[in-house]
Amino acid sequence: MLFKSQRSLFKFKNLVRNIKLVLEYDGSQFHGFQKQPHHPTVQEVLEKALSKLLNQKTKISAASSRTDAGVHAEHQVVNFKTSSSRSLEQIQKGLNALLPKTVAIKQIKEVPADFHARYSAKSKMYEYHIWNHPIRSPLLAGKTVHFPYALNLAMMRKGALLLKGRHDFRSFCAAGSTAMEKGNTVRVIHQFTLRKRGDLIIFKVAANGFLYHMVRNLVGTLLELGQGHISLTDLKAILHSKDRKLAGVTAPAAGLVLVDVTY
Amino acid sequence: MLFKSQRSLFKFKNLVRNIKLVLEYDGSQFHGFQKQPHHPTVQEVLEKALSKLLNQKTKISAASSRTDAGVHAEHQVVNFKTSSSRSLEQIQKGLNALLPKTVAIKQIKEVPADFHARYSAKSKMYEYHIWNHPIRSPLLAGKTVHFPYALNLAMMRKGALLLKGRHDFRSFCAAGSTAMEKGNTVRVIHQFTLRKRGDLIIFKVAANGFLYHMVRNLVGTLLELGQGHISLTDLKAILHSKDRKLAGVTAPAAGLVLVDVTY
Repeated sequence: MLFKSQRSLFKFKNLVRNIKLVLEYDGSQFHGFQKQPHHPTVQEVLEKALSKLLNQKTKISAASSRTDAGVHAEHQVVNFKTSSSRSLEQIQKGLNALLPKTVAIKQIKEVPADFHARYSAKSKMYEYHIWNHPIRSPLLAGKTVHFPYALNLAMMRKGALLLKGRHDFRSFCAAGSTAMEKGNTVRVIHQFTLRKRGDLIIFKVAANGFLYHMVRNLVGTLLELGQGHISLTDLKAILHSKDRKLAGVTAPAAGLVLVDVTY
Repeated sequence: MLFKSQRSLFKFKNLVRNIKLVLEYDGSQFHGFQKQPHHPTVQEVLEKALSKLLNQKTKISAASSRTDAGVHAEHQVVNFKTSSSRSLEQIQKGLNALLPKTVAIKQIKEVPADFHARYSAKSKMYEYHIWNHPIRSPLLAGKTVHFPYALNLAMMRKGALLLKGRHDFRSFCAAGSTAMEKGNTVRVIHQFTLRKRGDLIIFKVAANGFLYHMVRNLVGTLLELGQGHISLTDLKAILHSKDRKLAGVTAPAAGLVLVDVTY
């Protein structure tokens, strides 16, 4: 008995080891991040690789776990607890060898026991990439959404500025999300910019958190504004209406990339 | 009889219409450019779309028709002759509607009868993209080749300079190519530069023509030089040896993009 309890104490003590990973992945190869039956997800391949490498069932928490199929990540953050004594370098190399080529562990770090990839996150940043040219670009497909119509960028920048700040973003939240059910749909957008690089338009938006489909709905609505289908006054009315039906269509997943998470 | 000969005269006269296209395509979706049985190629999908659209069997000539499976094009040039009276805009729109999303017609132009996409070409330019970082980049995969080892860029630039100019590039030509059989392996490299953008290395090489696998063999050999496996003196000896066995390995197709053809 004494031996057994010493063993569990030992095990408990070692489970305090908390490890943070930074991941990059090509979302077009997965049915989103979060585990689900019958479809490959990032969480599934990562937990499988971790459990195999560390020889113990290992579960992860992710900064942004509800990203959809097709959404990419240049910088997704996860953490997991383990009793393994393997070095960080061994874990990173082992994971990169076991994971499919569509996922890579870019950074690894030991963090305090109370660090949680999702709950400790202070801010997340996404980019949305649009190829704004009459002719599609096969070399950019899959990472960039083709939008062939002319856009008034100055107007869209005014729209982005209007959306910046603390607002109830209920109008931009997909129906049936947990946040909506809880009535907790206020978020703070710290940064919302658009830049043009040739015929590419890159939206950059950072907030203390995002509702389900929020970035894609914001982009979809700004594209309506950029085409002159709605005015700035309409955009303000949409925001204040808290009615999802009034905002623009959800922009496709392929243009979206999680680019940063700050703690 | 009279009717028949008038008809052929009419047909001949109209066939004088010569049309030039500029294409972009994602080479990872094709088994190269040139038609071959049992595998999808760019030539096949393009001739099929053209023949359907113009309602007459149409054949194309391409600036660079022998590009391998996986090689991309940002700017491939082809031409075809037709008796169709459709407008250029109709042809471009029709082709872009019929072609798979992995190919796009970027430009279309009517050209003199003697223009030939391949024989009239004065110079072609390729880029080769390398992700030079210990960790692979899933978001760049397919368009960029992962090379994890440290490279001496200054040394590679010296190597590129040494290769610039008029030389017999037999050492960099894949065995069994037509040019080699004809003993016609002298080419002129007008430009050969390397630039670094973060952890990306981009080779740019322009010549009056390229031997089969020449760019990939040049890049493979410069990577040997950049790692210090061979010296500049070795590189010079390889060039002068005219022996393919002495040059570096053929760099993978995925990093290669045809970026320009000048006439």
